[in-house]
Amino acid sequence: MSAGMTTKNGEAFDRVSLESLMRRRLFYTPSFEIYPGNPKGLFDYGPAGCGLQANIVDLWRKHFVLEENMLEVDCAILTPHYVLKTSGHVDKFADWMIKDPKSGEFYRADHLVEEVLEDRLKGDKEARGVKPTAEEGEQKRKKKVKDTKAVKLDDAVVTEIEEVLAKIDNYNGEQLGQLITKYDIRSPRTGDVLPPPEPFNLMFSTNIGPSAALPGYLRPETAQGQFLTFSKLLEFNNQAMPFASASIGKSFRNEISPRSGLLRVREFLMAEIEHFVDPEGGKKHPRFDEVRNIELELLNREVQLAGKTDVERVSIGKAVEQKIVDNETLGYFLARIHLFLQKLGVDAKKVRFRQHMQNEMAHYAADCWDAELLTSYGWIECVGCADRSAYDLTVHAKATGQPLCVRETRKEPLRIEEWQVDIEKKKFGPKFKKDAKTVEAAIEGLTQDVLEKLSLDLKSEGKVSVDVNGVGNGTVELEKDLIAIEKRTRVENTREYTPNVIEPSFGIGRILYSLIEHSYWTRPGSDARCVLSFPPTIAPTKVLLVPLSTHPDFAPLVRRISHRLRVLGVSNRVDDSSATIGKRYARNDELGTPFGITVDFQSVKDGSLTLRERDSMKQVRAGEEEICQAVQRMSEGVEAWEEVAGRLPAFEKQELE
Amino acid sequence: MSAGMTTKNGEAFDRVSLESLMRRRLFYTPSFEIYPGNPKGLFDYGPAGCGLQANIVDLWRKHFVLEENMLEVDCAILTPHYVLKTSGHVDKFADWMIKDPKSGEFYRADHLVEEVLEDRLKGDKEARGVKPTAEEGEQKRKKKVKDTKAVKLDDAVVTEIEEVLAKIDNYNGEQLGQLITKYDIRSPRTGDVLPPPEPFNLMFSTNIGPSAALPGYLRPETAQGQFLTFSKLLEFNNQAMPFASASIGKSFRNEISPRSGLLRVREFLMAEIEHFVDPEGGKKHPRFDEVRNIELELLNREVQLAGKTDVERVSIGKAVEQKIVDNETLGYFLARIHLFLQKLGVDAKKVRFRQHMQNEMAHYAADCWDAELLTSYGWIECVGCADRSAYDLTVHAKATGQPLCVRETRKEPLRIEEWQVDIEKKKFGPKFKKDAKTVEAAIEGLTQDVLEKLSLDLKSEGKVSVDVNGVGNGTVELEKDLIAIEKRTRVENTREYTPNVIEPSFGIGRILYSLIEHSYWTRPGSDARCVLSFPPTIAPTKVLLVPLSTHPDFAPLVRRISHRLRVLGVSNRVDDSSATIGKRYARNDELGTPFGITVDFQSVKDGSLTLRERDSMKQVRAGEEEICQAVQRMSEGVEAWEEVAGRLPAFEKQELE
Repeated sequence: MSAGMTTKNGEAFDRVSLESLMRRRLFYTPSFEIYPGNPKGLFDYGPAGCGLQANIVDLWRKHFVLEENMLEVDCAILTPHYVLKTSGHVDKFADWMIKDPKSGEFYRADHLVEEVLEDRLKGDKEARGVKPTAEEGEQKRKKKVKDTKAVKLDDAVVTEIEEVLAKIDNYNGEQLGQLITKYDIRSPRTGDVLPPPEPFNLMFSTNIGPSAALPGYLRPETAQGQFLTFSKLLEFNNQAMPFASASIGKSFRNEISPRSGLLRVREFLMAEIEHFVDPEGGKKHPRFDEVRNIELELLNREVQLAGKTDVERVSIGKAVEQKIVDNETLGYFLARIHLFLQKLGVDAKKVRFRQHMQNEMAHYAADCWDAELLTSYGWIECVGCADRSAYDLTVHAKATGQPLCVRETRKEPLRIEEWQVDIEKKKFGPKFKKDAKTVEAAIEGLTQDVLEKLSLDLKSEGKVSVDVNGVGNGTVELEKDLIAIEKRTRVENTREYTPNVIEPSFGIGRILYSLIEHSYWTRPGSDARCVLSFPPTIAPTKVLLVPLSTHPDFAPLVRRISHRLRVLGVSNRVDDSSATIGKRYARNDELGTPFGITVDFQSVKDGSLTLRERDSMKQVRAGEEEICQAVQRMSEGVEAWEEVAGRLPAFEKQELE
Repeated sequence: MSAGMTTKNGEAFDRVSLESLMRRRLFYTPSFEIYPGNPKGLFDYGPAGCGLQANIVDLWRKHFVLEENMLEVDCAILTPHYVLKTSGHVDKFADWMIKDPKSGEFYRADHLVEEVLEDRLKGDKEARGVKPTAEEGEQKRKKKVKDTKAVKLDDAVVTEIEEVLAKIDNYNGEQLGQLITKYDIRSPRTGDVLPPPEPFNLMFSTNIGPSAALPGYLRPETAQGQFLTFSKLLEFNNQAMPFASASIGKSFRNEISPRSGLLRVREFLMAEIEHFVDPEGGKKHPRFDEVRNIELELLNREVQLAGKTDVERVSIGKAVEQKIVDNETLGYFLARIHLFLQKLGVDAKKVRFRQHMQNEMAHYAADCWDAELLTSYGWIECVGCADRSAYDLTVHAKATGQPLCVRETRKEPLRIEEWQVDIEKKKFGPKFKKDAKTVEAAIEGLTQDVLEKLSLDLKSEGKVSVDVNGVGNGTVELEKDLIAIEKRTRVENTREYTPNVIEPSFGIGRILYSLIEHSYWTRPGSDARCVLSFPPTIAPTKVLLVPLSTHPDFAPLVRRISHRLRVLGVSNRVDDSSATIGKRYARNDELGTPFGITVDFQSVKDGSLTLRERDSMKQVRAGEEEICQAVQRMSEGVEAWEEVAGRLPAFEKQELE
């Protein structure tokens, strides 16, 4: 937030113009838009958005699933009530909601407090004569909440509000209600006093099957399906630990009041990993050494609770050593997430890892770090990396009676010295008759300490007294001939434990939107043309094919190159419209297409082609074979443009505008 | 149905053993299985199932979307009520359901009739002493409906029932009720008489947003989202027609009583194309010539209505000429679907194209052909190819008032000769005063025929009489000075029309399951090992890497080859367990892995490797570079095994069992 956003070439970021580009080039648009009153928080991706999304998912699959041999699964979205009751979602997966009784509008309590207080800080600045940043000005223009009033606040109030805002995610419903009372936050629409916040469950409900007997929900995360198949996956993995499952699919959350475009939606693509790890021995990771020296910007819990947002740049090795990050496996994934974001092409200066505060964490989490990306909407959680401990496997095992655990043969058998009791069954039965079982159970329930004491009694007195509720007067005497107590060594060859889960969870839509903001800039010049500088590996289309003119001689050659590139796996588009070459390239800079191939009369004669790079607008010229190969290598990330420009002859002719 | 299914090497198909393989190797298993009473019709895909599904989708995208430059979109699953009300799904997207009032069970009416009547035919055969086929025997064993009774039927009744079964998809609810009465079909559970069938809507309903004000559904098809973005797509496509949109995503249908594994599920992956075409000029397709000579097995409507199932093998060119298939565009897609199924590796002898009967068609369809694949469950609809005419665009345009149409400049302006009326406004107003507008509207509403007649009146009598409801006595006289009627030529430069839609719609799960059945066989021999012969392009994993033993010298080489193949985009798995090589290969034959690379002591010395092919079990030996390249080429479908076996030296050593 704070400072105004700038684009990658340092100019002020203009969201209105980006949004217009998104719509114009059909990256995404609101769903059902031709119907008036279409629901918020639902979006359709057009061809460019689909292509970008597919490439992000593809990179994710390569970077995580293939690289680490994860077990990919695709589980059901429709989920019976009892599964999400067990997981805690039915009771706890809620946001705090306020209904304006007069207007009938619904507000998310924390968002309402945040917006109103931010607004007051702005009003204070205005009253003090501080000019708003470009971003603040733009936000103000678009604000739904009433106009900012220029009212000066006490210095102490300003500091207090800033602290509240820094930990806004840490308040529960009651505390939000107190803030609303304390700061006299009213309905933005009617100015009325509002009722206290109530929990609103975010899951969409439905009925599965023709009767109403089986209520269900649309899953709010892909995780539960993965937990429920744990035993099957463990068996598929030949009982070997640790291992991870992974899933890519849609999840659903019935947001109270969706806003911020793709950043808060009701239906979204998630990519989630559940890494199952033995909790014993500090949750080590075998490949941690590969990432130990990678440096991250960390914003930990304590700093936030102190009302601050200062990040610390530290290697993940050090962060784990110093217990800022709890364990190696959590640290390993934070580093791997960082590498993934870098490969995607996000701006390294706009990434931080923020630890969740206690109240902010999901009900299942023991610890959680978010990878946040800076956008014009502020810092946005794009990847959550939670330590869910053994929570989910434990509750499902308990609810179903199915063992969701690992049984492994101990390398060294465990030898346990313990007092054991032998009962002389032949005499025991006749003596106690119907009470025999009760007495036996009481003996089995004795602790080691008691057994040790009894063994001494038996030795010294030849008998022992044992309390047995409900038999005789509550105490039973056992003679030597009925019982023996001896210290022996028991050998345990197998160990049984419930794995802990480290869960990196990616919101693909949020990543996609943030990447678009980070890639967006305008080319200096009279007409300020928009460019999206996606890396070639991520760009939806890799090459634009541009015949010099609509002359029919070009068509067969263009068709041949297009087909050749397609066979090489390079997605390409032909623009044989009558617009100038410059205009045609400009249109494709907007789509983030990294390369352009021009076909001219010389091409028809000798097969030579001009290759243009989007960001530098530099061009090289070479034969068809060389150009196609260079484009393929760059699209796969094997070679960089600088290398290609270094080895192929430059083409200096001006772009024909 | 009819004859018993055989596998690709001619043995009897054994579904029980295939199902056991699917579960054991985690292709797919029922969702939420650890919970008792988990809902039917929901499945989780494991790693092998996910990989297979991803490769089918990938081929689909290449074969259709990329090859034909379709515009891919990804639209919302949550759909407001009013959209599906307009599309007709709220009123008509239903199956006929019967509730057994005593047991509370729900039956799908057509399935109940089908099962009971098929059972009676079997009982008849038994009574006549005809041995059931292997498949029938197996079906009987698994039947939920009561045991078949050996009761001989009249010959005429047998013929009648056979005819009913041949057109079972053509009956509406009333007709199904009549069949139930006629054949005295009772509750399979209680033997009671059943109530008449009622429609049951198949959409899952929910509420969008915090209030109950916006009811919605999970989409039953991806199509509606595509229709609603039509105008945006047309603009994106620079107003050029024809074009197609395409979408891959989950859809949902609340089946009354799911059965048949993956074939009838409540949540499924669809891939749908909406090809928008000008209805004028016979719905030609520019690339029809490329497919004209492709021959398909067609089962048309008339044959089915005659109670028969004989297919006709005919080229698609001829089928369109003879109007068996209505138009070129529909025919083009049938042929393209056929080519897609071939590339996938389905058994060409188990494919047919069946035309829908009138009552069977969805409410929006003008014509529809299904690509059906033969499985042990009978002929299964895997791809529907419907001509939805202008139905959807028309109803949505009407409901929203938004134009969902194409406006194009006519190449030849349309010249229309017509009678036109000129009104002398200056005199007209003063004369009719408040009635002026009504009179004018009445004149504008006159047909060409009437105008022609009036022009003669005007010429001959100097005045005309026009009926104007509500003015004077209902007739108005107009003199020459008020009105002129002349024949003139009007020129129309633009044409406006609502495109028709041809919709090929693919059920990916059904295709996946049918492909698995077609690919399944057991290797002759003592232990009857299972093999899934997926084509290398489709197989979930391409290569298994097998070190000869657990000797530590092999590990670095295996790791290097694995990494090298991954960089080449070839998915691979290492099996360095202590099982014999033969066993390890057998395990992977079950997963459909087409190739295996063995690393032995010679490999460590000189880098040479053995490459094994799954179906033939033949082996070749060459250097790492050559082997990796061969595997890559075969995995991409560029080279066949036969070619590789022809150019690389055979390795004759026996497989080490």
